[in-house]
Amino acid sequence: MSISASAADDSVSAGELSARYDNFVVDLLGSIAYGELSAFERLATDARHSPSLADRAVLGKMAVAEYGHYESMCARLNAIGMDPELAMAPYQRMVDAFHERTRPADWHESLMKAYVVEAITEEFYAAIAKNLDEPTQLAIAAVRTSDEQLAALTALLKKMLAEDPRLSSRLALWGRRMVGEALTQVQRIGAKHSFLVGLRPDGTQEQAAAEVAVIVSALTRNHSRRMSQLGLTA
Amino acid sequence: MSISASAADDSVSAGELSARYDNFVVDLLGSIAYGELSAFERLATDARHSPSLADRAVLGKMAVAEYGHYESMCARLNAIGMDPELAMAPYQRMVDAFHERTRPADWHESLMKAYVVEAITEEFYAAIAKNLDEPTQLAIAAVRTSDEQLAALTALLKKMLAEDPRLSSRLALWGRRMVGEALTQVQRIGAKHSFLVGLRPDGTQEQAAAEVAVIVSALTRNHSRRMSQLGLTA
Repeated sequence: MSISASAADDSVSAGELSARYDNFVVDLLGSIAYGELSAFERLATDARHSPSLADRAVLGKMAVAEYGHYESMCARLNAIGMDPELAMAPYQRMVDAFHERTRPADWHESLMKAYVVEAITEEFYAAIAKNLDEPTQLAIAAVRTSDEQLAALTALLKKMLAEDPRLSSRLALWGRRMVGEALTQVQRIGAKHSFLVGLRPDGTQEQAAAEVAVIVSALTRNHSRRMSQLGLTA
Repeated sequence: MSISASAADDSVSAGELSARYDNFVVDLLGSIAYGELSAFERLATDARHSPSLADRAVLGKMAVAEYGHYESMCARLNAIGMDPELAMAPYQRMVDAFHERTRPADWHESLMKAYVVEAITEEFYAAIAKNLDEPTQLAIAAVRTSDEQLAALTALLKKMLAEDPRLSSRLALWGRRMVGEALTQVQRIGAKHSFLVGLRPDGTQEQAAAEVAVIVSALTRNHSRRMSQLGLTA
């Protein structure tokens, strides 16, 4: 079966489309689940390097929320009869490698990583989810950092930058590295697994790739806006 | 004022006793709070080294529960008008040093550390709490690993030991190191801060030290029982 079969092409049966869609959903939920589990562990580890106990709670709270997201993704996978462990396995190496490449050198970089990567990840999920069936959509919509937590993180970063203006250029650079890595990750996951095809189960790989390009440019714009909010150039 | 003033000695006023007791409670809550925050971060970090994704959740779940305990200790400190950060600060170095000395080399040691240290810590708190005012008692009673989590941890350790019998001697040795470090820690905290005196606000330091000795021997007995449950010698 050619993967470039168009919507009008009868060679792709409804059954095949449906199987393709199901695989896509499992892949998506599995990648989110592992991403959240991994974010939980990394944020909790990073929290340890906080200079003050009060600040430490900002990443700690985020980490705990990520664990909740991981559990709700597992629950959704179980609900559709899939083993979460099997669904997560294909993403383990890729996500771990991402965290190795983006290991923060200090507390400042930990906060900035959380700020940049969480937002991009969640926007990516949200952008993909809007084409999906309602239960999947709802499950993915629940995987969001609370506004309260985001506000606390933003406030902390602003305070940090105000107290030490020399941080600005370093963190702007680090932010650029983070966004580069995050967008590369998004595209890699898209290319390696069934994401591209799954985005439009009845479409061609080219159509799906074009859609990913649109998503990536929206993610980039929003990232620039968030960096401006901190007074940094993206 | 002599610290060895006996209960019958009028030189210790009721006001002094009450201030001593309050300090003790703040010290106790502060040390628990920091211990829990720290356990959260260490367990989440250790969870990463799990050989399987399913097993990973055992330490992850425990870590998340510890964070909840940390938050409830902070809430209690706030309720009695104390700054959690100030209350925790005196314990930070001591607890961090404990974790440095007991850093697990692998997944097996992580599980065993969780099994030994969590239980001893909680029993220590419980033993101290039983002499305290009711709100403090209730706050401390809430800081317990759930039976479900403990059962999951025990099952995992048993499975691990059954699958690889050579682990037994290594983990028995590691367990002995953990209990030694944990009991030393208990005594150090007791000696360094107001714990000893606080245990019996109207008693002498000697009486309090005797009480700690009783607690430590109970902790040791219970630890031996838990090791036997795993088929290991304590």
